[in-house]
Amino acid sequence: MKRLLLASTSTVHGRPYLDYLKEEVLDHFTGRDRLFFIPFARPGGMSHDQYAALACGKFAEWGLKMEGLHRQTDLRQALAEADGVFTGGGNTFVLLKELYDSDLLGMLRQRVEEGMAYMGSSAGSNLAGMSVGTTNDMPIVHPSSFEALGAVPFNINPHYLDPDPNSTHMGETRETRIKEFHAFNSQGVLGLREGSWLRVQGNAVELCGPHTARWFTAGQEAIELAPGPLKLS
Amino acid sequence: MKRLLLASTSTVHGRPYLDYLKEEVLDHFTGRDRLFFIPFARPGGMSHDQYAALACGKFAEWGLKMEGLHRQTDLRQALAEADGVFTGGGNTFVLLKELYDSDLLGMLRQRVEEGMAYMGSSAGSNLAGMSVGTTNDMPIVHPSSFEALGAVPFNINPHYLDPDPNSTHMGETRETRIKEFHAFNSQGVLGLREGSWLRVQGNAVELCGPHTARWFTAGQEAIELAPGPLKLS
Repeated sequence: MKRLLLASTSTVHGRPYLDYLKEEVLDHFTGRDRLFFIPFARPGGMSHDQYAALACGKFAEWGLKMEGLHRQTDLRQALAEADGVFTGGGNTFVLLKELYDSDLLGMLRQRVEEGMAYMGSSAGSNLAGMSVGTTNDMPIVHPSSFEALGAVPFNINPHYLDPDPNSTHMGETRETRIKEFHAFNSQGVLGLREGSWLRVQGNAVELCGPHTARWFTAGQEAIELAPGPLKLS
Repeated sequence: MKRLLLASTSTVHGRPYLDYLKEEVLDHFTGRDRLFFIPFARPGGMSHDQYAALACGKFAEWGLKMEGLHRQTDLRQALAEADGVFTGGGNTFVLLKELYDSDLLGMLRQRVEEGMAYMGSSAGSNLAGMSVGTTNDMPIVHPSSFEALGAVPFNINPHYLDPDPNSTHMGETRETRIKEFHAFNSQGVLGLREGSWLRVQGNAVELCGPHTARWFTAGQEAIELAPGPLKLS
């Protein structure tokens, strides 16, 4: 049975890295032995080692042993034997390109299907959707496809932002961009506000955290979904 | 000699479509007979016909005859014979994919090199840069490459936005995103604020409009450039 923890952001304003998710992370990963961190999204262009040190250091504070996947001798084999994976945020295109180029995406998808615990934040949550077509990131590298893990049957838009009614800026709002997405794609899109996360067990999806989420489907008005079990159809 | 007019946005707050650019547009295109509009960026998912009607209607108000390129019998031939092209804004990925899929990008590049007058706004200005890697748009379709016209030897970030010092949002600022771009790409990036445009004649690039522009180069602090001739190196 699939087991996913998908956060809109790794950090909420004014609190340390991952701090607001501590209880969830412990619940998700405690008792699972071989945990790997996927640092490929490289926020701010930081190195894999730097990023893995940050995430694995935080997990270690909480008593969880996690290693950077990039340091393993055989990355596919490490994924094949993993009990849990955390994919950190950063640039979604950089993340996806690395997973395609190193032929890891299929293996990661298989392991998620088999019930390996998966956690993502930001770009790592985007990756869990059907495609990365609703990322907010700049396309700073070119992945061979935008198809993602498809661990949930919809797309995620992390860091979802409501339109600012006072803005004079003429660039598209997030809602406009997602409507454009639906001119070319059929899957639903869940706009996940910072501080929200999803718990997925099998086909059951639960919205957690203090905020409602915004649900976009092709040709329909967007609606707000309250925290709790989601009916997405 | 190359002749480009590259605007950050088609519309500034509180004014009609293209209105603030009227004098520049007339200067750029008057006396040129065969003008075509490229509607492929489809803002809001609108149809090619709808978009061409909007842009060609505005040009007609100003006494300029322009037709939608998409309606021509042979699009490559039409481009080959064009005296001027205006590429409207919308979604950069949709625009670029259509140009690749219909094998028009090379022809457009050639005509720009030959001195055909080119105008772009937003996505259409992005297209004039070396790549679309600094677009703000969502990757709602997958182009086979992010390489663009390369009509200027740098990348453009249209609708450039300064960081909001009061924001509690944890998503990356525009400046952070462009710095990430430079972890993977070497060309400079010009952040063009709404209301700014570039006039390019041959290798001379002039910043026009009321704002400074922000110039990002790999490994350097970004700098502000005043309106007037730009030295970009």
